[in-house]
Amino acid sequence: MSALPDPKRTIADLKELRGFSGDENGAQRVAFTPLWVKTREWLKHKLAGMPVEVHTDAAGNFWATLRGASEKSLLIGGHMDSVPNGGWLDGCLNVLAGVEVLRRINAQYHGQPPVTVRLVDWADEEGARFGKSLFGSSACSGNLDMNEARGLVDKQGIKLPDALKNVGIDFERVKDSGKELKHAAAYLELHIEQGPVLLDLDLPLGAVLGTFGVERHAITFHGQAAHSGSTPMNRRKDAFLAAAKMSQEIYKIAERSGNGVCTIGSCTTKPGIVTSVVEECRITLDQRHLDAAKLARMLHEAREAGERFAKEGNVRVSWERIWQIAPRPFNDELIALCDESIRETFGKSHRLPSGPLHDAAEVAASGVPTVMMFVQSLHGISHNKIEDTKEEHLELCVKAFDKLAEKTMKWIQVRK
Amino acid sequence: MSALPDPKRTIADLKELRGFSGDENGAQRVAFTPLWVKTREWLKHKLAGMPVEVHTDAAGNFWATLRGASEKSLLIGGHMDSVPNGGWLDGCLNVLAGVEVLRRINAQYHGQPPVTVRLVDWADEEGARFGKSLFGSSACSGNLDMNEARGLVDKQGIKLPDALKNVGIDFERVKDSGKELKHAAAYLELHIEQGPVLLDLDLPLGAVLGTFGVERHAITFHGQAAHSGSTPMNRRKDAFLAAAKMSQEIYKIAERSGNGVCTIGSCTTKPGIVTSVVEECRITLDQRHLDAAKLARMLHEAREAGERFAKEGNVRVSWERIWQIAPRPFNDELIALCDESIRETFGKSHRLPSGPLHDAAEVAASGVPTVMMFVQSLHGISHNKIEDTKEEHLELCVKAFDKLAEKTMKWIQVRK
Repeated sequence: MSALPDPKRTIADLKELRGFSGDENGAQRVAFTPLWVKTREWLKHKLAGMPVEVHTDAAGNFWATLRGASEKSLLIGGHMDSVPNGGWLDGCLNVLAGVEVLRRINAQYHGQPPVTVRLVDWADEEGARFGKSLFGSSACSGNLDMNEARGLVDKQGIKLPDALKNVGIDFERVKDSGKELKHAAAYLELHIEQGPVLLDLDLPLGAVLGTFGVERHAITFHGQAAHSGSTPMNRRKDAFLAAAKMSQEIYKIAERSGNGVCTIGSCTTKPGIVTSVVEECRITLDQRHLDAAKLARMLHEAREAGERFAKEGNVRVSWERIWQIAPRPFNDELIALCDESIRETFGKSHRLPSGPLHDAAEVAASGVPTVMMFVQSLHGISHNKIEDTKEEHLELCVKAFDKLAEKTMKWIQVRK
Repeated sequence: MSALPDPKRTIADLKELRGFSGDENGAQRVAFTPLWVKTREWLKHKLAGMPVEVHTDAAGNFWATLRGASEKSLLIGGHMDSVPNGGWLDGCLNVLAGVEVLRRINAQYHGQPPVTVRLVDWADEEGARFGKSLFGSSACSGNLDMNEARGLVDKQGIKLPDALKNVGIDFERVKDSGKELKHAAAYLELHIEQGPVLLDLDLPLGAVLGTFGVERHAITFHGQAAHSGSTPMNRRKDAFLAAAKMSQEIYKIAERSGNGVCTIGSCTTKPGIVTSVVEECRITLDQRHLDAAKLARMLHEAREAGERFAKEGNVRVSWERIWQIAPRPFNDELIALCDESIRETFGKSHRLPSGPLHDAAEVAASGVPTVMMFVQSLHGISHNKIEDTKEEHLELCVKAFDKLAEKTMKWIQVRK
């Protein structure tokens, strides 16, 4: 006999959470703060009726484990922490839908499912306080750069290791968290989309193909300052002209790439006065693609365009890499299961990449087969108190995510 | 019997001036400072051998008058003040070439030329201390905005009226200076070009058509901030994209206008972070033309282009006027005489507009027939210690400017 999840209970849990951990400006569950600690206690209370073991690992990630017939584990993850003035669904929807899935599995299998099922609340996904996101999941995956993290300080000058000590975590041991993945056979994560793709398609749910790889550069064009009144147009070495040409070019580069995106987010000019041709113009370029080769191609094309525009304008161009990360494609078979679960729930599905990073990217990088499910985001906006999703879509996502969990348990059982 | 000017004496005077009023960073004759006062005393000494009357007018302009048979006056002007770390020729070349012209006229006409000849050293042409250029000449022409000027303060918080009082000038009476123009029949000014036009043409001298009119605006494009990873390209309201399109457009607008120039000198972006589409992009646009109708046309075309790019990019655009000034075309007959004097001296001439403003623009605005002569500027650069002109070109300019003065005296005599 199959049990069924109760999506209305998840919505009630989300509202209860919002009631004590948000204010008129939004969610305030910043990692490692007293309110975040209180949220963890509340989460334990929510799990109390089930035969689950709970513990916090070496990196501050919280685990609830429902032992199954096999040690092989299905992991379901999310994060209770928020940015300051955050949305009411980002991260905690994942965890609380996971709680509901645990309840359903516990009911259906009378406390002993065929595989072990584990819920994880990752520590400090947002990086709101120390400017470094995916802390807990990158410690667990082993990707965390210890030297960089050791030096991180918050606005009050408090170092990350000292903040961790305050909540009982020994910074130098955080990577011991990696042992939690020992029997991990699959990782599932539900998340609000944080973009407008499903909204535009008028679809409630989507199967996520992976997280984009990112190439982030500063591009500086070097021209010559010259008097705006006395310098003929054909004599100018106009750094802004060359830089500005990149703005249309990146739309062409993104289009040629298929599903990539490119953004010039900032532009600064020197001397930056109304009476002088621009001597130096610095723009930032953020390029993202799910396919590493296509991402490399986009960067190559941007470099070529920059050289071409510099030459046309008789200026020089220089590049400086700000940051990069490889694409993290999810598991094809799990993507197919996710798609199937959505279609069985709503009739129509859509596959889409994730622009923002998620803890799932870290788990995927560690080698655990991973997939995410997105639910539609109203306004296409998150990290803001106006972040929202229709209640009917929240109900659909809990149902579809539960189906995905069931299918994945079966997939784990038959997988070699 | 004609006398001849001695251009080498002018060069010697310029070097002597540089010796006591400049340092390793350039000229330091900022208006109303002790060094500027000392420079005036030196100038008086240079004039001492001639039967000239000298006085300082109500606005601090210094006049040396060689009475002629007629009260009708030929004015020759320049400015001894410099920006801090200024060039060695800007302004003072005009005055010292004028001194040499006076010497030649005095010698040729034995102290009584057919018309009165007056040399004027305008006060505070540069506006280096109070940020308001053409102080003395605009007081004399009557264009000075008294309310604006009354409130000007320098970096030390000293008000312009108090600084003037220190050098014996009553601010409230500065426009009494206007009476100096009572018998003015023509105004001549020699100046280093401060641009690269004559350098590019490999010509030493040019006849100036007038000073550009200027339209100066801030243009702000208003889009929508959006996550650089999760926002598809076709969903963006990219304020930078719309603003950047203006950069190429202004080159087309300038080209269509004939001899106009357009400059985008600054670009700022909000939120201006690498991970967000630009919500707001502000650029400054400086447009200049010698023809008022064509200047208006250039502005109209820029406004149309801004609207078009805003519409294409699904963003809004708003304009704010920063400053404007009308073109100040010079006198056609004097331009012809200037051209003729240059051709008689060097064989080839060139007519060109002036991008920067000069005291001559104020005199022209007051209705006195005016023309300027430009001498080639090496590097096309001024307001900098590297400002320079070849000595052979300095000699040519004194000769040609002296010819122009002689032709203008005759023009005044025959003119109704």
